[in-house]
Amino acid sequence: VSEHVLKSFEEELVRLKGRVRDMGELTGVQLEAAIRCTEGPNFELAATVIQREPEANRMMHEIDSLVIRVLALRQPWAIDLREVLSALRIAIELERICDHAEDLAQRVITLCNARVEPAHSLVNLGRFAMKMVNDAMHAYTKMDDSEAQQVWTSDTELDAMYTALFRELLTYMLEDPRQISANAQMLFMARAIERIGDRATNIAETVRYLVGGTPVEEERPKADATKSLMLSTASSQ
Amino acid sequence: VSEHVLKSFEEELVRLKGRVRDMGELTGVQLEAAIRCTEGPNFELAATVIQREPEANRMMHEIDSLVIRVLALRQPWAIDLREVLSALRIAIELERICDHAEDLAQRVITLCNARVEPAHSLVNLGRFAMKMVNDAMHAYTKMDDSEAQQVWTSDTELDAMYTALFRELLTYMLEDPRQISANAQMLFMARAIERIGDRATNIAETVRYLVGGTPVEEERPKADATKSLMLSTASSQ
Repeated sequence: VSEHVLKSFEEELVRLKGRVRDMGELTGVQLEAAIRCTEGPNFELAATVIQREPEANRMMHEIDSLVIRVLALRQPWAIDLREVLSALRIAIELERICDHAEDLAQRVITLCNARVEPAHSLVNLGRFAMKMVNDAMHAYTKMDDSEAQQVWTSDTELDAMYTALFRELLTYMLEDPRQISANAQMLFMARAIERIGDRATNIAETVRYLVGGTPVEEERPKADATKSLMLSTASSQ
Repeated sequence: VSEHVLKSFEEELVRLKGRVRDMGELTGVQLEAAIRCTEGPNFELAATVIQREPEANRMMHEIDSLVIRVLALRQPWAIDLREVLSALRIAIELERICDHAEDLAQRVITLCNARVEPAHSLVNLGRFAMKMVNDAMHAYTKMDDSEAQQVWTSDTELDAMYTALFRELLTYMLEDPRQISANAQMLFMARAIERIGDRATNIAETVRYLVGGTPVEEERPKADATKSLMLSTASSQ
């Protein structure tokens, strides 16, 4: 293998990682806007998030093509192969986070149209998940295993916040049946944010694999308690 | 390249596709059980779905390792590389479908505990999505572009069914506030099934790419109308 080929493989790897970081930045911007338009609530800002969504898809396709080209032409192995596949995995998670951001924005518009103010806890949950995503991408840039580990463990806290919010939204439904539709939308917004946290955790897992060289074997903290959540309503009826 | 190396690459590709089909079969079994335990509702069957979920994760890891080995040792390109990457993509979708099946089973148990009969429309929706998954995997086995195309277009129908069910569940909440928690669980079950349809559509898209050689460029029919669904409740109060 000539020096030239080696050098250009290095360059392509750097370029690939750079594109994934760019996509991480776009994801951060979309997520920040999606949370901020919930806080307002801000119709125009929500529309911007929806308008920019195709950018994430374009970036994903570009990364996909880069990966296929690197695999086909450079035939990497060992650590290099791990770098390439990790870039692809992270890009897939980022694309899904952008999808969730769009989902949030679409439901904010629905709430705006109905003149409903979103629950404040939704914003707190959103900010927490956003920090997880940013930290996971920071860990990727710095190849920082301990920061990745921290994101990984903080998912439990997000799940606890999500469960509390789920319960809160159900009580609003009980208290005022006219708010059932709006709170159903908010239930799905809360769930989208919880999923964003899961995706940040997946990114953190990929970083830990990239730094450590072996897949993370620990059982993932799984705590979506909302699946078994039923309010006891007998006494309130 | 010796005859021997070529032959064993062919064998590995056949083995990889075989493992993906095995995973497709497990997914079919899990999904069938998840829908059937909703119909019953059947606590024991739901528990079986949850118990078998780690099998899907194990199969996913196995396929992941196979893909990495084939990429590293065989360095495939062109159609072979496409085959390998498609196998990985389909496996990722199947794993997520199994996750959704588990999610359905967990919520069925919650409903069983609360002695609530799940809405019948949920079963119809589930059967429709299950057929999409089975057809998509059949298209993969047969490399059948037109069957894949059919799955791809039927997603619109599933979305329409999902929207109708979403509306139905909101009206149950309005009619009987004691049923709010149970119907919130069913809203998430309906959404999980709608997501299963999306994943079947992704598999169909991968098959079309595999057969046709170029990514599907058509704009995907996107019709989750529930995001803007608000019941007009003013008159009913």
